[in-house]
Amino acid sequence: MSSALPVAQTPALSYGPLPGYTSIVAGIATPGVAYVELARPLRHNAFHEQLWDEFPRIVVAGQGRNFCAGIDVAYLRRNFLALEQRPPPASGAGGGGGALAAGAASAEAPPAGCPGMQRAAMRRSILALQEAFSEIERCRSPVIAAVQGRCIGGGVDLVTACDLRLCSEDASFCVKEVDLAIAADLGTLQRLPHIVGHGAAMDLALTARTVDAVEAKRMGLVSHVVAAAPDGAALQPRPVVAAALQLAARLASKPLLAVQGTKRVLLHARDQPRVADGLDYVATWNSAQLLSSDLMAALAGAGAGAGSAGTPRARL
Amino acid sequence: MSSALPVAQTPALSYGPLPGYTSIVAGIATPGVAYVELARPLRHNAFHEQLWDEFPRIVVAGQGRNFCAGIDVAYLRRNFLALEQRPPPASGAGGGGGALAAGAASAEAPPAGCPGMQRAAMRRSILALQEAFSEIERCRSPVIAAVQGRCIGGGVDLVTACDLRLCSEDASFCVKEVDLAIAADLGTLQRLPHIVGHGAAMDLALTARTVDAVEAKRMGLVSHVVAAAPDGAALQPRPVVAAALQLAARLASKPLLAVQGTKRVLLHARDQPRVADGLDYVATWNSAQLLSSDLMAALAGAGAGAGSAGTPRARL
Amino acid sequence: MSSALPVAQTPALSYGPLPGYTSIVAGIATPGVAYVELARPLRHNAFHEQLWDEFPRIVVAGQGRNFCAGIDVAYLRRNFLALEQRPPPASGAGGGGGALAAGAASAEAPPAGCPGMQRAAMRRSILALQEAFSEIERCRSPVIAAVQGRCIGGGVDLVTACDLRLCSEDASFCVKEVDLAIAADLGTLQRLPHIVGHGAAMDLALTARTVDAVEAKRMGLVSHVVAAAPDGAALQPRPVVAAALQLAARLASKPLLAVQGTKRVLLHARDQPRVADGLDYVATWNSAQLLSSDLMAALAGAGAGAGSAGTPRARL
Amino acid sequence: MSSALPVAQTPALSYGPLPGYTSIVAGIATPGVAYVELARPLRHNAFHEQLWDEFPRIVVAGQGRNFCAGIDVAYLRRNFLALEQRPPPASGAGGGGGALAAGAASAEAPPAGCPGMQRAAMRRSILALQEAFSEIERCRSPVIAAVQGRCIGGGVDLVTACDLRLCSEDASFCVKEVDLAIAADLGTLQRLPHIVGHGAAMDLALTARTVDAVEAKRMGLVSHVVAAAPDGAALQPRPVVAAALQLAARLASKPLLAVQGTKRVLLHARDQPRVADGLDYVATWNSAQLLSSDLMAALAGAGAGAGSAGTPRARL
Amino acid sequence: MSSALPVAQTPALSYGPLPGYTSIVAGIATPGVAYVELARPLRHNAFHEQLWDEFPRIVVAGQGRNFCAGIDVAYLRRNFLALEQRPPPASGAGGGGGALAAGAASAEAPPAGCPGMQRAAMRRSILALQEAFSEIERCRSPVIAAVQGRCIGGGVDLVTACDLRLCSEDASFCVKEVDLAIAADLGTLQRLPHIVGHGAAMDLALTARTVDAVEAKRMGLVSHVVAAAPDGAALQPRPVVAAALQLAARLASKPLLAVQGTKRVLLHARDQPRVADGLDYVATWNSAQLLSSDLMAALAGAGAGAGSAGTPRARL
Amino acid sequence: MSSALPVAQTPALSYGPLPGYTSIVAGIATPGVAYVELARPLRHNAFHEQLWDEFPRIVVAGQGRNFCAGIDVAYLRRNFLALEQRPPPASGAGGGGGALAAGAASAEAPPAGCPGMQRAAMRRSILALQEAFSEIERCRSPVIAAVQGRCIGGGVDLVTACDLRLCSEDASFCVKEVDLAIAADLGTLQRLPHIVGHGAAMDLALTARTVDAVEAKRMGLVSHVVAAAPDGAALQPRPVVAAALQLAARLASKPLLAVQGTKRVLLHARDQPRVADGLDYVATWNSAQLLSSDLMAALAGAGAGAGSAGTPRARL
Repeated sequence: MSSALPVAQTPALSYGPLPGYTSIVAGIATPGVAYVELARPLRHNAFHEQLWDEFPRIVVAGQGRNFCAGIDVAYLRRNFLALEQRPPPASGAGGGGGALAAGAASAEAPPAGCPGMQRAAMRRSILALQEAFSEIERCRSPVIAAVQGRCIGGGVDLVTACDLRLCSEDASFCVKEVDLAIAADLGTLQRLPHIVGHGAAMDLALTARTVDAVEAKRMGLVSHVVAAAPDGAALQPRPVVAAALQLAARLASKPLLAVQGTKRVLLHARDQPRVADGLDYVATWNSAQLLSSDLMAALAGAGAGAGSAGTPRARL
Repeated sequence: MSSALPVAQTPALSYGPLPGYTSIVAGIATPGVAYVELARPLRHNAFHEQLWDEFPRIVVAGQGRNFCAGIDVAYLRRNFLALEQRPPPASGAGGGGGALAAGAASAEAPPAGCPGMQRAAMRRSILALQEAFSEIERCRSPVIAAVQGRCIGGGVDLVTACDLRLCSEDASFCVKEVDLAIAADLGTLQRLPHIVGHGAAMDLALTARTVDAVEAKRMGLVSHVVAAAPDGAALQPRPVVAAALQLAARLASKPLLAVQGTKRVLLHARDQPRVADGLDYVATWNSAQLLSSDLMAALAGAGAGAGSAGTPRARL
Repeated sequence: MSSALPVAQTPALSYGPLPGYTSIVAGIATPGVAYVELARPLRHNAFHEQLWDEFPRIVVAGQGRNFCAGIDVAYLRRNFLALEQRPPPASGAGGGGGALAAGAASAEAPPAGCPGMQRAAMRRSILALQEAFSEIERCRSPVIAAVQGRCIGGGVDLVTACDLRLCSEDASFCVKEVDLAIAADLGTLQRLPHIVGHGAAMDLALTARTVDAVEAKRMGLVSHVVAAAPDGAALQPRPVVAAALQLAARLASKPLLAVQGTKRVLLHARDQPRVADGLDYVATWNSAQLLSSDLMAALAGAGAGAGSAGTPRARL
Repeated sequence: MSSALPVAQTPALSYGPLPGYTSIVAGIATPGVAYVELARPLRHNAFHEQLWDEFPRIVVAGQGRNFCAGIDVAYLRRNFLALEQRPPPASGAGGGGGALAAGAASAEAPPAGCPGMQRAAMRRSILALQEAFSEIERCRSPVIAAVQGRCIGGGVDLVTACDLRLCSEDASFCVKEVDLAIAADLGTLQRLPHIVGHGAAMDLALTARTVDAVEAKRMGLVSHVVAAAPDGAALQPRPVVAAALQLAARLASKPLLAVQGTKRVLLHARDQPRVADGLDYVATWNSAQLLSSDLMAALAGAGAGAGSAGTPRARL
Repeated sequence: MSSALPVAQTPALSYGPLPGYTSIVAGIATPGVAYVELARPLRHNAFHEQLWDEFPRIVVAGQGRNFCAGIDVAYLRRNFLALEQRPPPASGAGGGGGALAAGAASAEAPPAGCPGMQRAAMRRSILALQEAFSEIERCRSPVIAAVQGRCIGGGVDLVTACDLRLCSEDASFCVKEVDLAIAADLGTLQRLPHIVGHGAAMDLALTARTVDAVEAKRMGLVSHVVAAAPDGAALQPRPVVAAALQLAARLASKPLLAVQGTKRVLLHARDQPRVADGLDYVATWNSAQLLSSDLMAALAGAGAGAGSAGTPRARL
Repeated sequence: MSSALPVAQTPALSYGPLPGYTSIVAGIATPGVAYVELARPLRHNAFHEQLWDEFPRIVVAGQGRNFCAGIDVAYLRRNFLALEQRPPPASGAGGGGGALAAGAASAEAPPAGCPGMQRAAMRRSILALQEAFSEIERCRSPVIAAVQGRCIGGGVDLVTACDLRLCSEDASFCVKEVDLAIAADLGTLQRLPHIVGHGAAMDLALTARTVDAVEAKRMGLVSHVVAAAPDGAALQPRPVVAAALQLAARLASKPLLAVQGTKRVLLHARDQPRVADGLDYVATWNSAQLLSSDLMAALAGAGAGAGSAGTPRARL
C-alpha cells in the first residue's frame, strides 16, 4: 500500500561488512535503525543477541533479486547425511582447558556409528539452527522483514520470526520443505499458524504452493505490499527496503519502552493464550515500566493541547 | 452489510439514566435486550455483574459522534503520576469495623514514598480497570458492540472484550497506546490476536495506525459494516445501533441456554486451545444443559416438518 | 480457484460399498488416494483407525446434492430424549465372558431414572461421537474435504476436523446447532476458531448465519473454491471432487514422511501454541524421521541440477 | 512441633462479632494480624475481599471442639434438591432498576421444570460457593489455618485454600464427600494434589479415610503439629490457635511486599508449572516491587553488621 | 498398615482364563469387583476398554512371587532391533477390503531400509504400548495395584497408571530402564513425578536404585504396606491381594458416580494444574451428575440421624 | 544413607583453577565426571554451556565450611540500589563495530533517571542471573549437588536447579530471601514446589525457617544424607563430596543416552504436566535415540545370561 507508506524522503543508507560476520552486511539508516542484509541467514549465531540489543529497530532484507532461497542444499548434505558415516572423532578434538578436555574426550567420545548418538547430535544441530531465528524474537525492539522476489523454505522460517513483514509486488512465498522430504523444522510450522491461522498454514505447508503478494496480504502474512521498482530502474534502496526503513524510522520515533513492552507482551500472549494470564502479566509489567520519562512527556504534551475542544487527540 | 442486516423495522428504543451509574444510560429495546450507552467506559465497576446477568443480550454503543476516545488523559495524570509524590495516608482512613480498621491502619499504612508500595498499588489499579472489561466476558449472554466514528485506545480494549462487533462505514480503529508511551494493558494485546491473528495485532499495536471500516471487516475485527446515516439525517437510533439492536433481537429469539453455552464454550476454547480438552469440556457441559425445554420444543417442531421431503431444515 | 486446480485430467474413480460399513462407499482413485463418500458421517466409529492408516491421502465428499445436513433429528430424539425415561436394563444385557458379565451386570446396572446416571451416559455418548471426527485428525495422512451444496451443523464439525477444505461455488456453511437448542459439541467450537479466528467463530456460532463460498474463502474456511458443474451437466465426478482428487494425487506424489510429519507437527502446534515447545518437538521428531530414503533421493536430484545457475530450485 | 513454635508469650486476643457477618467473629491479636473464627465457612461471600485486604496476616480457626464439620446437610437439601421441583419464579422477583428489571423478568424467567436451566443454576451456585474459598488465595497476605478436632469435607476445601496449616495433636482430616455421593467440588480435588501429591490425594478422596495429625504432618498436609491442651485445661486461646497467632505475628514482622510477593509468585508457579514462565514472571514482578523501603532498610542493617566475621547472616 | 486393612474376612476369590486373552486370568471377588492377574502386562491391548468398563472396581495383581519383572528382553529384541534389518513387506500383507487393500499396499509399502520409516514405525509401536497402560486411567472406576515381590521397569509403568497402590512388606520397586539403555517410555517418567515429586522421580529414574516397601510408603508411592505371608504359609489369596480386594469391596460399596467422578476430576487436575480451570470443570461436572439416586439416599440417611447430638456424621 | 553410598573407595580428586573463571575451581575425578567447586555461584555465566556439555556427569560442591551463603549483599547494593541514582551513560560506551555502535549510542542511551528504563534494566539483570542456574538444567548430563553446612538463599536457588541433591548430616537449608525484603527470584519459588510440594514450599519461603538434614530428607529436598566428618578429621574430599563423586561415577558407568534422555524427559514432564503430551514426547524421543550401541550391548549382555533361571535381571 504505497500511499500509506510513501517512498519519498527515502532515508540515506550506507552500510558495509559487519565486523566478525562474513555473510551479513549492515549499516545505519535513520539514527536508531539498523539495516541488515542477509546472504546466508541460517549460519549459526548469525543474529547474535548483542547485535540486536544495540538497536531499537532493525530492518532485515535480502541481498539481490530474491529475498531468501532457503537452506543451501550443499549445507544439508554436509551436515545431515554425513551423520550416517561419521568417522570416530579425532582424539585431540574439542576445546576446554587442559585436564578437563582430556577427561571429557575419553568419556563422551560417541562410538562411531552409534545411531542413537547420531540422532542426538542431529537434534542438537536443529535446535541450534532454530536459535538463530528465535534470537529475532528475543531482540527487544521490533524487527521488520522487507521481502522482494522469492521467499522460500528457510526464508519463511526467517520472516515469520520477524515482527512485521512488508513485501514488494513481485514477492512470493513458498513453504517448500515438504518437497525436499523435510517437515519444516526452523519455526514456520510453529509461527505461521499464529499469523495466518491453522487452516491456511496447513494448506501452505502440505501443498508447498506458491503464494503471491496479493494473497499474502489477504492472508495477513504481510501487512503491506509496496510497488516494485519500474523495469530498468536501479533504485537504491529498492522501494520495499525504503518503505521498511521509513516504517522503522517511524517506530524509532515512538516511545522506546512502550514499543518494546508491546512487542514482548504480544509474544507472551501468543505463547500463553489464556487472556487472564496475559492480563496479569501486562499489569505486572506496566507496574514496573509504565512510569517513564516518555509517559511524562506525552502527558505534558497532551495536557498542553487540552484546550482544543472536541478532538480526541489527547486521549488514547 | 446492510442486506444481511436490513435497518427497517427498527426496534423502538427508550432509555434513561441507570440508577447508581453516572456515566451510563441504559434501556430496553426488544424484550430481553438491554441497551447500554457509554460515555466513560473505564470507570471502575461500570459494568457490574448484576447488570449483565439480568439480560440475555446486550448492545453496547457510544454516545455522540465517536464511539470511545479511550482513557481520559486527566484520569491518567491523576492516577498514575500522583503515585510519585503520594502523601502519607491520613490516619483515620479506611473502612471496616472498629477494632479491625484500627489494627489494619497501623499495620499496613505504606511508608510514604516507598517505590515498591507505589508499584504494588499501580498493579492493583490496572488489574481493577481490567476487571471492568473482563466483566463483559463473564456476562453469560452475548454482548454486541456498535461502533460509529473513532474507536481509540481504551475503546479497542472494550470492543475486543465484546462477543460481536458491528461498525458503521465511517468507523475507524486505532490501538493508540504506544503513542502515549504505554503498552496497552486493558486487554487489547491479549484479545486482539485471537480475533485478527498475531501478525496483524503486532502491526496495529506497534504502528498505532488507523484502520478504517473496510479493513476492519477484512481483518475480521468486525463482522458487519453498516451504512452510515446520510448527511444531515438525524436518524434515531443511528443505523449501526439499529442494526446491533436487530441482531440482539435475533439472538434473543434463539434458545437461551444454547446461546449462553456457545459463548462460554468458545471462550473456554480460546483460553485452552487444546482441542481434546475443549471436547471433554463441551461434552461435560452438554451432559448437564442439553436436555432443555428448548431442545424438546425444537425437536417437536422439527418432527412436525419431517414430511417435507428433501429439505435439510430438520437436521443440523 | 479453478486455474490453480484445473479439473482436466480427472483421475478415474471407481468405488463401491466398503465391507463392514453400511453408510460409506469408498474406492481408490490414484494409487495411494482413497475416496470416501458419506451419507451418515456421525455413525459411531464410521471412520475407523484401520481405514485411515492404510491410505496416504484421503478425500472425503458427501453423496448427492448437499455435502452433509448434519445430525439426523430422529437420531437425536432416539438417543438423548430416551434418557429421560430409560427403562431398567434387561438382566442378561451386556457382553463379556461368563462370570465377569454376571458380576458386572449385578453391580453397575444403573438404577432406572437416576438423573446422574443418565447424564453420565449422555456424556459418554457425546465423547464417543466426537471420537469419530477426531479419528480424522489421528489419520497420519492428510484428509481433504470436498464440499458441494449445503454443509450444516455436524457437517461443519466434520470438515473442520479435515486438514484441507475445498468447496464448489454453490457451497454454503452454517453452524446451525444453536437454532436447535444445542451448543455444538462435536468439535466445531474447538476447531473453527483455529481456522477463522475467535471473533469470526463467535459470529458464525452465535448467529447461525449461512456463509457462502466466497465468504468462506475470504475467512480461510476453505482454501479453494471450484467452479460448480454447469446446469444440466452430469459430470462424474463432480468438479469439486475432481479437484480434491487431483490435490490428493499431488500430495500422494510428495515424500510420505514429510507430508505426515508436517500434518502432525502442525496439529501439535495448534494444541500447544507455545513456539518454544513446538520447536523442541519438531527438532526431536526430525532427529528421528528426517533421514529418509526420500530425503536422499531429493538431495541427489537437487544435486544433479546444481549446475543450473541462479535458480533457487535446489534450495528450500 | 512445640519447640519451634513455643506457646509461651501468647498474644492477647480479644474479638467480637464482625459487623455485617453473622457467622464469623473476628478480632486483632498482634497489630497487623487478624483473627477470624468460623462457624459456617460456606456462607457465600463469607470471606469478602475487603476483609482480607485490610490485614497483612490472617489466622483462620474454627469455633468449638471441631474445626469444621463441612457442609450442613440441611443446606444441601435446601439448595440442590429443591432444583428438582423449583416452582416458577414470582413475577416481581429480581432486583435492579425499574424498566431494566421488568424487561429482564419477562425475558429470562426460566421455564419451570426445564432441566437444563436447573443444571445451569446449579453450576452457578457451585461456582459461587467456590469463590468464597478462592478469596482466601486472592488475599494478598498469607492466611494460616489452625485446625483442632475434626476437619471434614468442606473443612478440607477451606484449609487447602489457606497458605499455611497448623493442627493440634488431636486433629484429623477426612475428604468425606464421596460417602455423601458427591465429587468434592469446592477445591479439595484441585488443591490437595499440589500439597500432598496426586497419589495421596487419590487415596484420601476415593477412600474417604480419616488421617490423624501425625500422618497429616508426614504427608505435608500440615507443616506443624501443636500439642493439644491437657485434659480439663481451659486454655484460651487453644494452643494451636496460640501457635498460629505467633506464626502470624512472626510473618507480620517481615517485610510486607516480600511476603505478599512470595505468596503470589508461588501461586503463579502452582498454576503455571513451567519453570521458564515463572522465572519471567518473578523477574517482571521484582523489577517493579523489589526496590522497597524495606529492602533499603535490610541492606543498611546488613551492612552495619558486616564486621561480624564468618557469619553468613548478611547474605541470603 | 494391617490394622487399617485387616486381612480377616477375606473375600472368596475364584477365577479362570478370560475369554480372548492368553496372558490374563480374571474373576469376580465381591460383586462389582473384578480381579485381574497378569503375567505379561505389556501385551498390546491387554487391558481393553470393554473389560474395564464393565466393572466398578478392579484389582490388578501379578502372578507368582514377583509382581512384574518388566518387558521381556526377547520381546524388545524381536520388536526394536528387527527394525534395523526389516525385510520388504510381503506384497499381500495387510488387511482391509479388496480394492482398498490393494491400493494401500502399493502406495505405502515402506521402502526396505528407509531409516525414517523405521523410526516412524518404532514411534507408533511405542505409542501403542503406552495405550495399554493409559487404558487403566480411562477405566471409569478405580484400579488398585497389589504388589508383592519385585516390581521392575514396565511394572512401575503399570502401577503408576493405577489409581491406588498397595504392597506387601517384601515388595520392592526399581525404575530399571536406564540400565538397559532405555529412557523409560511407557509412562513412569510422566506419572511418577505426580506421585512422589520431581526430585524423587529424578533420583529413582537416574540411579535405577531399588526402593523397598518402607521407603515406597514414605515417598507416597504406595498408600499401604501389608504384612507378607509367613514363611511356608500358602495363603490364598496372598495377604496383599486380600487387602486390595477388601479395599475394592469398600470402594464398591460407595456411591458409584461419586467414586468415578472423583477419579476423573483428580486426573483432570493432574493434567491441568491450574486450580481455576479445575474448579470450573468440577462445577460443570457436578451440575450434570450430582443429582443422583445415591445423593438422595445419602441425604435421606443423613437426615434420619440428625437427632444424634454433636456428631458431625451428618455433614461432610 | 551411608550404607547405600559407602564412602570407601573414594575416587582420587585433583583439581585447580578453571581457565577463564576466577570463582570456580574444577577438576576430573572419575573419567567422565567433572568436579566443580564454587565460591560465587551467582557470577553471570559462571556455568557456561560449553563447560556443561563436555562432561557426562557433574558434581557441584561449595568451598569451605558452608555450601553457599547466597547473594553477597555488597553485590545487591552495587547492582540494584545503584539504579536509583544511575548517572547518564558515557557517550563512548558500548561495544560493537564502528558505525553501528555510534548509531546505537545516540539512539538508545536511556535518559538519566527514567524510572521505566531503570526497571527494564533491572528486569534484564534478574533474567541474566536466572540464566546462570537454568544452564544447569540445560546441561545434558545430570548435575549433583553436594551440600555441607549452610545452604541459604541463592544456595537454594542453585541446588533446586540441580538434578540430584546429597547433603551431610550437618547441612541446613533456608529460603532466606523474604527476610531481606526480596521475593526469591532466581528459581527457588518455581523449582522447589516441584520437589517438596506447594504446601511445603509455601511454608519454607514465607517463614524463612531453617530446615536440617533430617527434615530435608523427609521432605524429599535431598535424596541422601551422608555422615559428617568426625570432629578434627581433615578428610579430603569431605564425605558428602566423596559420596557425590561415587554417585556420579555410578551414573557415568550407565548408558549415556539413556541417562541424558531420562533427565530431559523428566524436565519436559515437569514443565508440561499433562501425561498424554509427555507420552507423545518420549515416544518421539525414543524413536530417534533408543537404537543405540548401548542398547545392543545391553541386549546382548542380557541374552547371555538368559539361562540363569528365575532371576528377573534380564528384564526391565
